[in-house]
Amino acid sequence: MPASSTQHPNTRPKDVGILAMEVYFPAHYVDQTELEAFDGVSSGKYTIGLGQSAMGFCSDREDINSLCLTVLQQLMEKYNLSYSNIGRLEVGTETILDKSKSVKTVLMQLFEASGNSSVEGIDTTNACYGGTAALFNAINWVESSAWDGRYAIVIAGDIAVYASGNARCTGGAGAVAMLIGPNAPLVIDQRVRSTYMQHVYDFYKPDMLSEYPVVDGKLSVQCYLRALDQCYQAFTKKAQQEEFEELFTLSSADGFIFHSPYCKLVQKSLARLMLNDFLQDPNPDFQDLYKGLEEFREVKLEDSYFNKQVETAFMKSSQPFFIQKTKPSLLIANQVGNMYTPSLYGCLVSFLIHHSLSELSGKRIVLFSYGSGLASSMFTLVISAEAPQQTQLQKIHQCLSDVHNRLNTRVKQTPGQFEQMLKLREETHHNAPYTPVGSTENFFPGTWYLKEVDDKHRRQYEKIPSAAAT
Amino acid sequence: MPASSTQHPNTRPKDVGILAMEVYFPAHYVDQTELEAFDGVSSGKYTIGLGQSAMGFCSDREDINSLCLTVLQQLMEKYNLSYSNIGRLEVGTETILDKSKSVKTVLMQLFEASGNSSVEGIDTTNACYGGTAALFNAINWVESSAWDGRYAIVIAGDIAVYASGNARCTGGAGAVAMLIGPNAPLVIDQRVRSTYMQHVYDFYKPDMLSEYPVVDGKLSVQCYLRALDQCYQAFTKKAQQEEFEELFTLSSADGFIFHSPYCKLVQKSLARLMLNDFLQDPNPDFQDLYKGLEEFREVKLEDSYFNKQVETAFMKSSQPFFIQKTKPSLLIANQVGNMYTPSLYGCLVSFLIHHSLSELSGKRIVLFSYGSGLASSMFTLVISAEAPQQTQLQKIHQCLSDVHNRLNTRVKQTPGQFEQMLKLREETHHNAPYTPVGSTENFFPGTWYLKEVDDKHRRQYEKIPSAAAT
Repeated sequence: MPASSTQHPNTRPKDVGILAMEVYFPAHYVDQTELEAFDGVSSGKYTIGLGQSAMGFCSDREDINSLCLTVLQQLMEKYNLSYSNIGRLEVGTETILDKSKSVKTVLMQLFEASGNSSVEGIDTTNACYGGTAALFNAINWVESSAWDGRYAIVIAGDIAVYASGNARCTGGAGAVAMLIGPNAPLVIDQRVRSTYMQHVYDFYKPDMLSEYPVVDGKLSVQCYLRALDQCYQAFTKKAQQEEFEELFTLSSADGFIFHSPYCKLVQKSLARLMLNDFLQDPNPDFQDLYKGLEEFREVKLEDSYFNKQVETAFMKSSQPFFIQKTKPSLLIANQVGNMYTPSLYGCLVSFLIHHSLSELSGKRIVLFSYGSGLASSMFTLVISAEAPQQTQLQKIHQCLSDVHNRLNTRVKQTPGQFEQMLKLREETHHNAPYTPVGSTENFFPGTWYLKEVDDKHRRQYEKIPSAAAT
Repeated sequence: MPASSTQHPNTRPKDVGILAMEVYFPAHYVDQTELEAFDGVSSGKYTIGLGQSAMGFCSDREDINSLCLTVLQQLMEKYNLSYSNIGRLEVGTETILDKSKSVKTVLMQLFEASGNSSVEGIDTTNACYGGTAALFNAINWVESSAWDGRYAIVIAGDIAVYASGNARCTGGAGAVAMLIGPNAPLVIDQRVRSTYMQHVYDFYKPDMLSEYPVVDGKLSVQCYLRALDQCYQAFTKKAQQEEFEELFTLSSADGFIFHSPYCKLVQKSLARLMLNDFLQDPNPDFQDLYKGLEEFREVKLEDSYFNKQVETAFMKSSQPFFIQKTKPSLLIANQVGNMYTPSLYGCLVSFLIHHSLSELSGKRIVLFSYGSGLASSMFTLVISAEAPQQTQLQKIHQCLSDVHNRLNTRVKQTPGQFEQMLKLREETHHNAPYTPVGSTENFFPGTWYLKEVDDKHRRQYEKIPSAAAT
């Protein structure tokens, strides 16, 4: 149990944040270079232009329920957690299989043996932002007087697939589970965070029978960048008020990680933050950091979303920041693709496993969460330097140490097989009754998969036996 | 502004709860007696058997976005609130028009003129439970260190329609908006609450192209009653630990209100709580409260969901409790039908406007929230007896005083017109492009309605001019 609930009723527990993490991605992937050739596009369009190397995808054996069952059970087993000690579970997803019944209720099956049915939280949805909303809700619960001393779990999961065409190469799939409680090694700073929400039709899913979104690609990039500007401006202002005496800039934190639709947009986003810094700076140092950027002094943010000259100049100037503070977060994004709600948290996982424990100690990471439609927030995670938290961080490191191996042991499918599988999903993903035909032989140990959908749309799952708990 | 956010950072604000409420229901309804005749069922089946007098319904002019736009703007105008002072807005609904884009983002249109785009919260879903989850999340936010001193708003809204057949008469539609902050007249007690969640297919919406659920009526009632038993047992245990020295029973609170699929189930639910009290009581008073119930001493809760003898006996014995503590909550449920997520909060509105201010002062109300699938909670609302809160309560009373008049000025439609309208919704509710054909002439002042859906499914709304703000 994380703590006693019998503390002073009006005092909040301290250092609430992430105590444990697990990530799941599919065992099948398609190579983006092969996909370029298959799609007949210019070589490098996906790999260099978008910065993507591979894309994970699911057969008809996996759906949002199975992804979340898998990542939840893996989290519980790897960290040797008891289902009785969980008081809240919330799922953030935009992969909707049912308009009413939440994924959370499906996950209650895993709690049955423990006898624990007292688990608050349901599902929360707005595009790729649902995981962040669930995380904030879980932290607020722990800090509230409703907290009963047990842990919360946040799950972000999605299957991202696009109709054939330009956007198809930006898919992905996966899930992340996070254990939330006080005295965490990864503390979410609740004071310095900013939020920007707006009504816009940049990416949405109004065709209820399709897994595919309606996307206005250019508008979506513009919305993402505007939300980034708005969040960063409000964030730096709050940071200055609350914690920093000087201007908050790219130099003020050790990591900047982003929701990643594709890795190149993340690199552009970091450049964008540098543009913001530059325009905010009353006296930019043109001899050093901002060398050669004099001509951009009068740039207006809202006119520059697609200004190639600005983009190129700031991508070049921000390159050292990118390599040090952002690139380490892009392993899973590059290898699996856009996982939607878990994307940002997959970036956090990548960042954590890229660094040694001593490198991580005391580090401050800024996170940007974006969900089309749109909802966005920027917030801070601080890695504790305290000894007990370091032990827990070591456990996280150890439990996530198999990510490289899991990525490397995935089974490559040809673009033709990938396309066939998407076609099968298109034709069958809402059928009832339905018996999936996809093979499960390459699935990772512990993977839940769809066994059958009966004539009333009720879904039954089975599991590949787990590996021995670490 | 509700309060300064610069209080001691580890101390929670006090008495967080509901500061303002508004309810919206459609201007059209069908009479349940007429529907009985039209459906060719025995007279009294809907009116006496289910306890329903009328059912509100929407034409193709209203959808979940328009319902929520209406109730939000009415709340803001009636209470003279500023959009700049809202820091969080969360929507609970199971009326899903888009798998990705939240209703919350559509509502951001109303914030545009204020320039406030910093509004946390998105949508949350599990059947009729979404409003309660949103309410808990909003209260936790105010109690958390993330709170920035502004108000939260919770909106619960749904359109409940069923395929033709037995369940169609149990539809309804509406929305409730609640303003959340500290020092509230309606304080949510965060310590004494219980939650019961389970994986079950009692009611769900797997057919993504239909507005209708798949329902197993008998299973759904059994799930509701089991959840009620489980929540009440955990609730009474906690109440005893935290606040009461004696057993918590129906005598311990002044109101018991329930999610209301139909009013008769609510009456049965209150009887069920009395059955729980009776079985818990080590020494039941057979001379008075439990007179004539000796034969039920060995009843097992899990065997008695459909035991008519038990039901009849306890409905009779609990009748005085029902009349005093529950019936006053059923006006809107009886007149509008099941509004899904707002149902419980419509019951709260009915309870509040049934009583005078002096009657309400200091009262304790127990609420049972249920969403199929299933998610359920029981919690307490305490009506403040403090003077400043009484002034705010008076404002709530005043703003809700038009509910009777609104109910009475609705326009009755024939069962034939009702059926035609449902058929039109069936055929068109997901069409794009689409121009609605329903008349708006009877709509209440301030009602938002759907003007057009374009070929990309983008929805445009217009508004009946508001009445002068009260």
